Amino acid sequence: MRIDILTCVPNLLDSFFAHSILKRAQQGGFVEVKIHDIRDYSTNKHRTIDDYAFGGGAGMVLQIEPIAKCIRTLQSERNYDEVIYLTPDGELMQQRMVNQLSLKGNLIMLCGHYKGVDQRVRDLFITKEISIGDYVLSGGELAAAVLSDAIIRLLPGVLNDETSALTDSFQDNLLAPPVYTRPADYEGSKVPEILMSGHEAKIEEWRYEQSLKRTRERRPDLLQS
Amino acid sequence: MRIDILTCVPNLLDSFFAHSILKRAQQGGFVEVKIHDIRDYSTNKHRTIDDYAFGGGAGMVLQIEPIAKCIRTLQSERNYDEVIYLTPDGELMQQRMVNQLSLKGNLIMLCGHYKGVDQRVRDLFITKEISIGDYVLSGGELAAAVLSDAIIRLLPGVLNDETSALTDSFQDNLLAPPVYTRPADYEGSKVPEILMSGHEAKIEEWRYEQSLKRTRERRPDLLQS
Repeated sequence: MRIDILTCVPNLLDSFFAHSILKRAQQGGFVEVKIHDIRDYSTNKHRTIDDYAFGGGAGMVLQIEPIAKCIRTLQSERNYDEVIYLTPDGELMQQRMVNQLSLKGNLIMLCGHYKGVDQRVRDLFITKEISIGDYVLSGGELAAAVLSDAIIRLLPGVLNDETSALTDSFQDNLLAPPVYTRPADYEGSKVPEILMSGHEAKIEEWRYEQSLKRTRERRPDLLQS
Repeated sequence: MRIDILTCVPNLLDSFFAHSILKRAQQGGFVEVKIHDIRDYSTNKHRTIDDYAFGGGAGMVLQIEPIAKCIRTLQSERNYDEVIYLTPDGELMQQRMVNQLSLKGNLIMLCGHYKGVDQRVRDLFITKEISIGDYVLSGGELAAAVLSDAIIRLLPGVLNDETSALTDSFQDNLLAPPVYTRPADYEGSKVPEILMSGHEAKIEEWRYEQSLKRTRERRPDLLQS
């Protein structure tokens, strides 16, 4: 898989892709992530890429020309399965969507900033609009990082232990059960005895019940879907 | 406001807080963000902070002792309004929650990693559990960054133009209307005439109708709440 991220704040994402699982995934050759500075595609010598909104109002709008140029350059080099725009009015990101995107080949992700991008970018170039949640961020960069992280950790071979992702929250519409590790007694607060019993089947049963209980209490909507 | 983020991958967040609005907010004295390495609070010389889960299963669990030590140290230095744990089974983050948190004083944010933290950390120290969405990430660091970004941009004085945040999506349960900027004609694709008419009242009316239309089509659930 290859992910191309288009942004006007390219260095914002540097440390994120240079650490932890995302670093290992790139080093292991499971994914290639390229970050592109939209300013490099500006059509003027001042490298401007935004302008005031037609009709007035607060906030700047990203112009179509530099973004179009960048997307067309990338598309002339290889095929992309989706050209994604991260925006609060897009389709709500959920685990099922992430699972599907993890099966794709190449993805472009466009990060909005300021008041967003010129609507014509969305009409002419974008194939999928995604929101990571019902809240507003200062830019789409973090949203692109969130989407990339969620996708990349599902690519075969990226997680050390393949069973690890399968027991995540949401993969079976249940929240994960509580987990405990040493010490068994922390200032009088103890680990449930069942977990130290060694009865594998009973432990699994307890975990399933805890998952169900937690989901009923916290997110009954997940059980209905 | 002061935000203390507890993580086992402290450098992952470096570039994020060093750029754009979050950099300006810190330089302007609107917020202080401190990132703490949980390993610095390890109780052994190997600086380990995680261990296998009691009862078996894939994935490591963050231990209670280093986290407890870090939280207690911070709480001995100042008061905190909330000790937040970022977790996929927490309360779903929404704009209203962000608005409320932006009015608080000091916040601690604990980032999970691997299979999460020992349940006793949640029982004994955490006052609020937040999920940024129904999907799983490789750690809570990005979630803490998302929450911080959403909060900090609302602090008075952080955005250059104070009216800017008020016209965001979700602030009035409506998605934002489409925006356009120059050129007026891009390869035959034109800006709606109304926006170039100069009739301020008609433009506002058009924007409201577009917001309503977009919300009806994409997120009818927002209109019912």
